[in-house]
Amino acid sequence: MDRSTALQLAQQLQTGKITPDELADQVCQPRSAQLAQTTIDLDRARRCGYPEVVFGEGKSVEMLTEIFQRQCAEQIEVLATRVDADKAAQLAKQFPQAHYNTIGRTFRITASETPTPRTGKVAVVTAGTSDLPVAEEAAETLDWMGVATNRLSDVGVAGPHRLVERLDELCDAQAVVVVAGMEGALPSVVGGYLAVPVIAVPTQVGYGASFGGLAALLGMLNSCAANVAVVNIDAGFKAGYLAGLIAAQTAGAAP
Amino acid sequence: MDRSTALQLAQQLQTGKITPDELADQVCQPRSAQLAQTTIDLDRARRCGYPEVVFGEGKSVEMLTEIFQRQCAEQIEVLATRVDADKAAQLAKQFPQAHYNTIGRTFRITASETPTPRTGKVAVVTAGTSDLPVAEEAAETLDWMGVATNRLSDVGVAGPHRLVERLDELCDAQAVVVVAGMEGALPSVVGGYLAVPVIAVPTQVGYGASFGGLAALLGMLNSCAANVAVVNIDAGFKAGYLAGLIAAQTAGAAP
Amino acid sequence: MDRSTALQLAQQLQTGKITPDELADQVCQPRSAQLAQTTIDLDRARRCGYPEVVFGEGKSVEMLTEIFQRQCAEQIEVLATRVDADKAAQLAKQFPQAHYNTIGRTFRITASETPTPRTGKVAVVTAGTSDLPVAEEAAETLDWMGVATNRLSDVGVAGPHRLVERLDELCDAQAVVVVAGMEGALPSVVGGYLAVPVIAVPTQVGYGASFGGLAALLGMLNSCAANVAVVNIDAGFKAGYLAGLIAAQTAGAAP
Amino acid sequence: MDRSTALQLAQQLQTGKITPDELADQVCQPRSAQLAQTTIDLDRARRCGYPEVVFGEGKSVEMLTEIFQRQCAEQIEVLATRVDADKAAQLAKQFPQAHYNTIGRTFRITASETPTPRTGKVAVVTAGTSDLPVAEEAAETLDWMGVATNRLSDVGVAGPHRLVERLDELCDAQAVVVVAGMEGALPSVVGGYLAVPVIAVPTQVGYGASFGGLAALLGMLNSCAANVAVVNIDAGFKAGYLAGLIAAQTAGAAP
Amino acid sequence: MDRSTALQLAQQLQTGKITPDELADQVCQPRSAQLAQTTIDLDRARRCGYPEVVFGEGKSVEMLTEIFQRQCAEQIEVLATRVDADKAAQLAKQFPQAHYNTIGRTFRITASETPTPRTGKVAVVTAGTSDLPVAEEAAETLDWMGVATNRLSDVGVAGPHRLVERLDELCDAQAVVVVAGMEGALPSVVGGYLAVPVIAVPTQVGYGASFGGLAALLGMLNSCAANVAVVNIDAGFKAGYLAGLIAAQTAGAAP
Amino acid sequence: MDRSTALQLAQQLQTGKITPDELADQVCQPRSAQLAQTTIDLDRARRCGYPEVVFGEGKSVEMLTEIFQRQCAEQIEVLATRVDADKAAQLAKQFPQAHYNTIGRTFRITASETPTPRTGKVAVVTAGTSDLPVAEEAAETLDWMGVATNRLSDVGVAGPHRLVERLDELCDAQAVVVVAGMEGALPSVVGGYLAVPVIAVPTQVGYGASFGGLAALLGMLNSCAANVAVVNIDAGFKAGYLAGLIAAQTAGAAP
Amino acid sequence: MDRSTALQLAQQLQTGKITPDELADQVCQPRSAQLAQTTIDLDRARRCGYPEVVFGEGKSVEMLTEIFQRQCAEQIEVLATRVDADKAAQLAKQFPQAHYNTIGRTFRITASETPTPRTGKVAVVTAGTSDLPVAEEAAETLDWMGVATNRLSDVGVAGPHRLVERLDELCDAQAVVVVAGMEGALPSVVGGYLAVPVIAVPTQVGYGASFGGLAALLGMLNSCAANVAVVNIDAGFKAGYLAGLIAAQTAGAAP
Amino acid sequence: MDRSTALQLAQQLQTGKITPDELADQVCQPRSAQLAQTTIDLDRARRCGYPEVVFGEGKSVEMLTEIFQRQCAEQIEVLATRVDADKAAQLAKQFPQAHYNTIGRTFRITASETPTPRTGKVAVVTAGTSDLPVAEEAAETLDWMGVATNRLSDVGVAGPHRLVERLDELCDAQAVVVVAGMEGALPSVVGGYLAVPVIAVPTQVGYGASFGGLAALLGMLNSCAANVAVVNIDAGFKAGYLAGLIAAQTAGAAP
Repeated sequence: MDRSTALQLAQQLQTGKITPDELADQVCQPRSAQLAQTTIDLDRARRCGYPEVVFGEGKSVEMLTEIFQRQCAEQIEVLATRVDADKAAQLAKQFPQAHYNTIGRTFRITASETPTPRTGKVAVVTAGTSDLPVAEEAAETLDWMGVATNRLSDVGVAGPHRLVERLDELCDAQAVVVVAGMEGALPSVVGGYLAVPVIAVPTQVGYGASFGGLAALLGMLNSCAANVAVVNIDAGFKAGYLAGLIAAQTAGAAP
Repeated sequence: MDRSTALQLAQQLQTGKITPDELADQVCQPRSAQLAQTTIDLDRARRCGYPEVVFGEGKSVEMLTEIFQRQCAEQIEVLATRVDADKAAQLAKQFPQAHYNTIGRTFRITASETPTPRTGKVAVVTAGTSDLPVAEEAAETLDWMGVATNRLSDVGVAGPHRLVERLDELCDAQAVVVVAGMEGALPSVVGGYLAVPVIAVPTQVGYGASFGGLAALLGMLNSCAANVAVVNIDAGFKAGYLAGLIAAQTAGAAP
Repeated sequence: MDRSTALQLAQQLQTGKITPDELADQVCQPRSAQLAQTTIDLDRARRCGYPEVVFGEGKSVEMLTEIFQRQCAEQIEVLATRVDADKAAQLAKQFPQAHYNTIGRTFRITASETPTPRTGKVAVVTAGTSDLPVAEEAAETLDWMGVATNRLSDVGVAGPHRLVERLDELCDAQAVVVVAGMEGALPSVVGGYLAVPVIAVPTQVGYGASFGGLAALLGMLNSCAANVAVVNIDAGFKAGYLAGLIAAQTAGAAP
Repeated sequence: MDRSTALQLAQQLQTGKITPDELADQVCQPRSAQLAQTTIDLDRARRCGYPEVVFGEGKSVEMLTEIFQRQCAEQIEVLATRVDADKAAQLAKQFPQAHYNTIGRTFRITASETPTPRTGKVAVVTAGTSDLPVAEEAAETLDWMGVATNRLSDVGVAGPHRLVERLDELCDAQAVVVVAGMEGALPSVVGGYLAVPVIAVPTQVGYGASFGGLAALLGMLNSCAANVAVVNIDAGFKAGYLAGLIAAQTAGAAP
Repeated sequence: MDRSTALQLAQQLQTGKITPDELADQVCQPRSAQLAQTTIDLDRARRCGYPEVVFGEGKSVEMLTEIFQRQCAEQIEVLATRVDADKAAQLAKQFPQAHYNTIGRTFRITASETPTPRTGKVAVVTAGTSDLPVAEEAAETLDWMGVATNRLSDVGVAGPHRLVERLDELCDAQAVVVVAGMEGALPSVVGGYLAVPVIAVPTQVGYGASFGGLAALLGMLNSCAANVAVVNIDAGFKAGYLAGLIAAQTAGAAP
Repeated sequence: MDRSTALQLAQQLQTGKITPDELADQVCQPRSAQLAQTTIDLDRARRCGYPEVVFGEGKSVEMLTEIFQRQCAEQIEVLATRVDADKAAQLAKQFPQAHYNTIGRTFRITASETPTPRTGKVAVVTAGTSDLPVAEEAAETLDWMGVATNRLSDVGVAGPHRLVERLDELCDAQAVVVVAGMEGALPSVVGGYLAVPVIAVPTQVGYGASFGGLAALLGMLNSCAANVAVVNIDAGFKAGYLAGLIAAQTAGAAP
Repeated sequence: MDRSTALQLAQQLQTGKITPDELADQVCQPRSAQLAQTTIDLDRARRCGYPEVVFGEGKSVEMLTEIFQRQCAEQIEVLATRVDADKAAQLAKQFPQAHYNTIGRTFRITASETPTPRTGKVAVVTAGTSDLPVAEEAAETLDWMGVATNRLSDVGVAGPHRLVERLDELCDAQAVVVVAGMEGALPSVVGGYLAVPVIAVPTQVGYGASFGGLAALLGMLNSCAANVAVVNIDAGFKAGYLAGLIAAQTAGAAP
Repeated sequence: MDRSTALQLAQQLQTGKITPDELADQVCQPRSAQLAQTTIDLDRARRCGYPEVVFGEGKSVEMLTEIFQRQCAEQIEVLATRVDADKAAQLAKQFPQAHYNTIGRTFRITASETPTPRTGKVAVVTAGTSDLPVAEEAAETLDWMGVATNRLSDVGVAGPHRLVERLDELCDAQAVVVVAGMEGALPSVVGGYLAVPVIAVPTQVGYGASFGGLAALLGMLNSCAANVAVVNIDAGFKAGYLAGLIAAQTAGAAP
């Protein structure tokens, strides 16, 4: 709490506008909900612009159900990542209005019936078809944020003209997500052609010495293109989130 | 070259507006300059919004002089990184109008006399004082881009209130650069409080098992905060560049 | 054997209080039991304060049965870790009085019927719900040691206020166990608020570049908080044991 | 700030015992000092029991002087680690009452003239003589905390009786620091003989495949002794601090 | 497009030999085909001498079917690698003329009925029988390129005479592929006997510290034989391709 | 072939004792057998003292059958390692006289009916029961070599007296195999008590940061005991073989 | 020695054409020279096509002098790599006809006065100017082999058109050496445009997470271009040698 | 102490042959000497056959002097490793009878004037001349143990005949030390020709991806030759010691 707010509260108390209890509540207001085994951050949208996204891996259907119910009750747009098909099938029975992306493994429950208008635009580029699951996770995240997306698939550097032929489609994006495994060279090449931030996502796709995506990760971190930032291996969600944040605030639509 | 441009050129030729030579030049225009031992990218500003930045490490004073002279002749604002003090002293004799940042080891030569007006704002945050050289490289890059900066030094997580006390100063930035060594936890904490992109830079600062910045790098890549992207160890330039790109385009000033 | 004990035995022998055989037994007393394929340390409680804990992984039901029977015969409180559900079901038939923790995968057989009185208090904190199995292993170990525990779940740094809201609950603990995956930043933050030792346990929870918990491990080892010690990845037992040792000896109840 | 404190302040304000300004100050009290290039944590002793310790590496003599002057003014006992001999010589001119440990490279300035009485006891054990600098850093930290220390040098496992001969000296310590390079086996052996926490510190001492202490670090993390916790490579300070914390609170002298 | 071609086109247009549309087509001719989820490089054979080879891993039977149909339509000889037995069985129903190598897991569809004449010769050498799947992938690739192969199996360095006995068989090859796991020493020994390029392929075969082929990979990269180049772990396709390229161009048959 | 042998052959030819063909055979005698997919080293026993041992992993039942038949025909004592239970069951039908060790996964076929007399003695020591499979592989290898073995199980350093109590049993061995996972400290301790070579085998047993045996491997390589040599992770066969070689040649029984 | 040669020798002996001593010499002919501390391979050119190249690192001036004198006496063209400037200056006094490349650190002594005619052509491409020393080592090796070279410097992927503009210059090479640090993406891009083998050399150039060239090495090993083989970090000599071997044999000039 | 010894002592005491003090001394006899900063193991020769060897790295001249003086007083043959030239020069003034090996950096002081007779024989083989320092450390250790050595230098696998030509010289050794950097293939090849144990020592010699000897280390650990054991990188002392132990006990001369 900043000092001016605290001073204001003190003056309101002094002038009888609020009670001591109200002041104490303001100073120490609850901003999270403790469920049976999880603690939800209800303050996330206020602080960070978007509500908490649920990491589905390692959570039981019971835990997820409890979390989703509470988030729905709070009018929060639900997005959960890394939900496998089995769990999704069980959850779908409880939340029939939900949408499950079978490739990207995301689970969403929309609060309002009218779709959010799109503001900002992000291109999601993949080097090969094996990178699609990660790209879909990014694209779903962007859609959840209300950001328009354009997918360019399978334009890796082994056929350099494939990207060049489609550069036009990248020119109206405010940020680009590039998903690649193997040597992870595509973000450098994309970055060399563009004037917007490139969020690079390494994937585990590749032969032996890709070491679970390490090769692509190091390649992207060492990119000689200045406009390339990197997220974790297979972290489609985070790449989509960052690109969406940039696109939305550039388009003047950031929360 | 996109097809519509090519078609347009063909029609201009047909109607006698351009000669075959002019068409050929357009299709194959030279966009780089080959100097004695280096090749300068003269097309960078058109493609990427900002001219090429020179990586000073491993280049001799002769190479740097030749590059700077050509860039000056092309009216390019010169920024070179990783220029050690000895080289800088020699270069300063040739370019008396240059500015050398002794902590950040950047070397700049300004083309115009009137300073560029500031558009956009970026906060540059460090965990400890040993992270300053990397932060200065970022800040100089931002200044070269015409983006305003605000420095917050030495606010690492061991004293968590140090950051909280200064959160106000972060609230008008369109992007934040966070520089940290050791466990690299500061970007996660900063990211947890903010609604703008955080560009995290790991540094080599730390005891033995930091393994030259690897610990901080992995920490930042695994950040549980969704708005944290990562660049290479000690890559102050790249962090500054990315944050500047975001801030400038958000402020409506991107090239 | 220290010299004063040896001298005392020699004098007892000289004065006829003990026989040569008794002296030899004392000097070379058996302190372990060799079973069919294992060797149990019967001297552990005397040396280390608590009896041997059985590492269940890689041991057959036959081996475990044999060990438990011998430990029960010696009035040792049985605690086995890493016992999977299948083995536990088979063992439960032989030891109906046993207690199996399905999340933490610990198997316990209590020697006495009256519960040990609690002395000392340890808080067990997790960053996310996926860290629960490791935390449960720690909590069961503490319970077995007779130390009271307080569990705080899902208070990771992405929502920094979740921890701050519950700092009160940490203030009466003599030691804190913090379990976290991903970047492993939570122990640093907890450590920055407290005056007691923090035992940090990295987990394998996370995206690709967590590399099986390596990222969290390095993060915790490089913690800038001075009161953070680290144990092996997923080593809930060891963290609980160390915290319990500290709490018990602080509370004056160490064996 | 916890709710009961806030409520109390509100009531004090209501009854005129404090002014709005005083309430605001309490809620937002300054707890750090911003110097020219560093930010000191003045609240550390209140939160963590001991004041901030200065990490000397990468800080200039000017920075250190400024920090020490402010700490002295605040009546804080100064302890700085990783201060090399050159810096120490320059600092000694400004702080003639300071003590510099040439092996451990610690720099201390004592606030009061009467030495602090010793409470609690820690043994500092080294495997070989090359581990001494790290052990000295630990011992100085313990002395600064007011904890008595007992040094056992050069008792590594290649000569297993060397430790056994001196086990007596370990028996009255409330915690033990074990410093070892190479395979880092000594903490396991020490841990196997004792009922108190062992804080293990890996060092860089060793032939090629010690990989800068990595071998010892992994060895200690994988220790089969349950009472062994680990800190960073060469982190004598942190090991001393943790052991001191345990010893002091066991001896009833924790702040 | 090089300048002389562009100039020529312009002159053809000027003299009415081509239309503006034809010029635009030439400048921007489509060289890839966008299928439902993949983008095929149709220009590969022109640029690189051989058509695109399909990486089967991570692609569904639907994707592969669509790709193969298009390649067949373009008269491209189909070669797909890493196609597991299940997928191959399904694909075989659609492409009855296809050939599946069960050990090497390659899937081929031949465009013409008359076999390509063999030009150039490559020896494919394995250290042990466990290396066969990788060697078969290499041999199939060579066969697809129209290069003759000679297989030498199980001639690793533990029995050094096994290789020496068969050196004659290596003497007419223009390039040699050596496949080895464990310490990967065979390429060095083969290289020491020959005057042609050796393409070394590390495999995952081995005990624990082979670390998934890392040991063999590092061994081959550090080979003291000057004529040894290395490809990725298990990358039989790439080794075969490179050796085939060398053999074909030496034999005067390179495309 | 050494020069004196060649000279002798030449003289035998000159004096008509041998024909040119016989000389050529001697100079180039076949020493290996090429089976369908494998090449057996028939010269191994002459060069190395013991015949070739078959690495079972990655070989089909057909390959193994073919190899065993040929070895039996050559009167070679068959030893195959890493043969899983399924393969063993199938092979047992073809070789009913064979012996399969279910823990150590070794498969043996004895050529002669009278057991080889034992010469030399080796102790096989394990730290924990989970290390038994590796120890059994070593022990079977020693038995195959005709070397007597003594097994000491479960004497790891967490209970240091367990080893000390049984030191007597180690004193008549000419070499000791020590098998350990986790921190791998046992070989150092054993080595510190003995005057014979210790062959250390790291295993994959352990919690997360054992990294598949890497921790134990590095620990053993860095052992401060001078008489400790190391073999690959889980390499029971190689440890047994080396220890057997040493014991046999010390006992004067080396081939 | 192959059987037909041995048979022939035997027949020559039988018919009195050679003596027993001559046969023995042929069978066991000396092919190396033992100098004071080194052993030179005099048979290398016969086996491998080119004489032995001297690795200068770690050899004293005395050792190098002795080796060079012997090689000159044998009419061998001397090439030594990794000779630092100090050693070169001392060696130049003894071998005034030698040539030292100050950037590539190669030392050569030419046996004949007339330059070898050039056969075959190799392009040596670098990503940045900091990669020049490695490229020069490659170029000198090619020159020593009698292969023509074409250098393209500073055409890395951050400015993708720089390479495209100069593709023409690559089209007559029979092999291409590509030298790159950082993410090592250039070989993939070059490989995607060409139909000849590409030998990729990673360098240590880069920011922190290049980890001494590891990032570039992994990138190149994982290249999605099929015609890219890799050599050791900074191994300019080996890359030049391999490319030269390929070019020479393609041009029909291989020894 | 074993039980029979203890019983014997007790009976001696009972019969008055020894006093209680003597019994206590026997049971707890001092076996180490505590000097100013080091603890010498005086019992080593009794337990391990050879006295303690001093690791010179990280020890001051004062420490070394004190240790050597005590060892000389105890009639121990002094061997110290890793003593740099500066220290050696200072130590030589105090111990004029000492011998310093400038390549191997060993420092020895011989107790008796008559040289120990040689028993047992070990061959010390190096791959290249840069491996000599490590080989010399091994050879000096063997000489100190009274074992005869035979040096074979520079016989690495790039010139495979160099080793074959000298196999005769290896045939009378009871153990072989093989020192190699780069890919570390030489021990496998040597092992493939011999029936005695091979102790392999990896060195740091090599280009970039040798990673300080890691490549050679992994290569040797993964050796397909069964008689190869490995020691630490650059650990010439340990390799010599192990080989000497084997040779001495085989020759019947082991202590």
